Amino acid sequence: MRLATLANGTPDGELVVVSADGKRFLAAGERWPNLLAAFTDWQKAEPALRATVDEVEQGAGGKITAQTAFRAPMPRAWQWLDGSVFSTHARLMEVAFNTDPIENQRPLMYQGQSDRFYGPTEDVPFGSEADGIDFEGEFGVIVDHVPMGCTPAEAMERIRLLVQINDWSLRAYAVPEMKTGFGFILAKPACSVAPFAVTPDELHDGWRDGRVCLDLQIDWNGKRFGSANGREMDVGFHELVAQAATTRDLVAGTIIGSGTVANAGYAEVGSSCISERRAIEIIADGKPTTGFMSFGDHIRMAGVDAAGGKPFGAIDQQVVCRP
Amino acid sequence: MRLATLANGTPDGELVVVSADGKRFLAAGERWPNLLAAFTDWQKAEPALRATVDEVEQGAGGKITAQTAFRAPMPRAWQWLDGSVFSTHARLMEVAFNTDPIENQRPLMYQGQSDRFYGPTEDVPFGSEADGIDFEGEFGVIVDHVPMGCTPAEAMERIRLLVQINDWSLRAYAVPEMKTGFGFILAKPACSVAPFAVTPDELHDGWRDGRVCLDLQIDWNGKRFGSANGREMDVGFHELVAQAATTRDLVAGTIIGSGTVANAGYAEVGSSCISERRAIEIIADGKPTTGFMSFGDHIRMAGVDAAGGKPFGAIDQQVVCRP
Repeated sequence: MRLATLANGTPDGELVVVSADGKRFLAAGERWPNLLAAFTDWQKAEPALRATVDEVEQGAGGKITAQTAFRAPMPRAWQWLDGSVFSTHARLMEVAFNTDPIENQRPLMYQGQSDRFYGPTEDVPFGSEADGIDFEGEFGVIVDHVPMGCTPAEAMERIRLLVQINDWSLRAYAVPEMKTGFGFILAKPACSVAPFAVTPDELHDGWRDGRVCLDLQIDWNGKRFGSANGREMDVGFHELVAQAATTRDLVAGTIIGSGTVANAGYAEVGSSCISERRAIEIIADGKPTTGFMSFGDHIRMAGVDAAGGKPFGAIDQQVVCRP
Repeated sequence: MRLATLANGTPDGELVVVSADGKRFLAAGERWPNLLAAFTDWQKAEPALRATVDEVEQGAGGKITAQTAFRAPMPRAWQWLDGSVFSTHARLMEVAFNTDPIENQRPLMYQGQSDRFYGPTEDVPFGSEADGIDFEGEFGVIVDHVPMGCTPAEAMERIRLLVQINDWSLRAYAVPEMKTGFGFILAKPACSVAPFAVTPDELHDGWRDGRVCLDLQIDWNGKRFGSANGREMDVGFHELVAQAATTRDLVAGTIIGSGTVANAGYAEVGSSCISERRAIEIIADGKPTTGFMSFGDHIRMAGVDAAGGKPFGAIDQQVVCRP
């Protein structure tokens, strides 16, 4: 099942189901007006939404066109926790940031801004190009309520939807904020999310061991930048979810991210953020040659399955100067 | 104006206004069913709520009794950012944690769990006494929408309400999480909030230079633990708000905390968290003698003004073992 959200003038938008071919949509209806509302009772919402999928597959609803204004599947959430569990990425970021290896006993994770997620084609405003504007291509999960102290196996059963995320980052603030130990505020403004949130079954073999095993194709200003695969997470999403729930209940609708997708074979597949490419340049040439993003730059990201399908659709948007 | 929230079976509770003597309440009504809803249009909500205050002062509404079940004024919020801007506290925590001084160019701040705030008398569940259960007495503000890049002076004009918070902390996780640079997840479960959120004018001289200049009286199991004053913040709340908005818009209803209230004269006034007292013991005796909290322990916190009034009411609750 694929779900999306259309702009309708409300903060949470209008929940719609999307046909398997990605060509049609149908509103979920009044009982489940938006995705956040569906997470208030997912046990009832899911079968109702699957019934709506049957309708759209039989021809009900409207056509998706270039003018269809998708928002993030969940334009705001009560909680967004972002992991960083691709060790290839972590190692390269130590080079990029010129910092010591992180002494972590558990998978890395920070709590990020959840009151706003940009839609896949919205312009993304920043204050200054000097802030080191960078993208971070990720996969993520949306969970049902998770009780404090649950196991990874229990957490796996609470993963309801998968999403694809651009975790916008401002590198000029990253190292100073990390050095405080208090984590990221200025370095991590709101993320963008690809249009379709999908149930794990929708990925078939692409969802294995709690990992989204798709290539994340990234194009910066129309040029291929990376296509790393999500399978190399050091731990699966179920382990991230269980960690997040160590000392707190996770509210239904919590979004948990993988961190930047990266592969040991980065020489072949490229990277999912600019900082990582700069680290690779430092290792090869002693200095970085790729700059960060400029106003007007475009970024496109789409997870691609073995058959060439794009189950999450694509993020395709522009960086702009804030008014 | 004093506002509070009563349990009514909904996630956000029922918004009520409270009389100046703290003895009566009156529902804000359908247009402003809860505080989060009021923050969707504070310009309209505030005069309407002040008119409701006039009604309660004239005898409308009900009596507040020991049975009145107050929740947190805002039981969940889209964003909670907690500063740490009492340098006395920061210096003592370096002793408590045996860590190097933090190299921060800006006031310390982390993003915390905002999907749940415990009410003032709710039991607070934790998984293990071995996690180092600690309270942190703080003051906080709730802001209207704050645009990215605003100045501290502009931020001051966006502060709508003041609150009093217990930022529950699990010290066993604090140092390992700080060392990652990614901030606190396990170390910072949900906070508790005192029953009344107040407009700044309600504090009269107690609100000065963006600081809540009240003694925060803290009693642990019925014994006075501290009464530090909020006036010694290194920077005012307006500066914290402006910092938080450096690279993001702040959604209306964002809560921003001061961090643990601490005074240079801690020998006289005591502390607002156990870790800080332990640091003082380490300095004096070479080792800490006060342990952290046990299941069944009670904590009471109330900001007290010059006339002995408690504008925020009191947090008065018990630590319990999670089911």
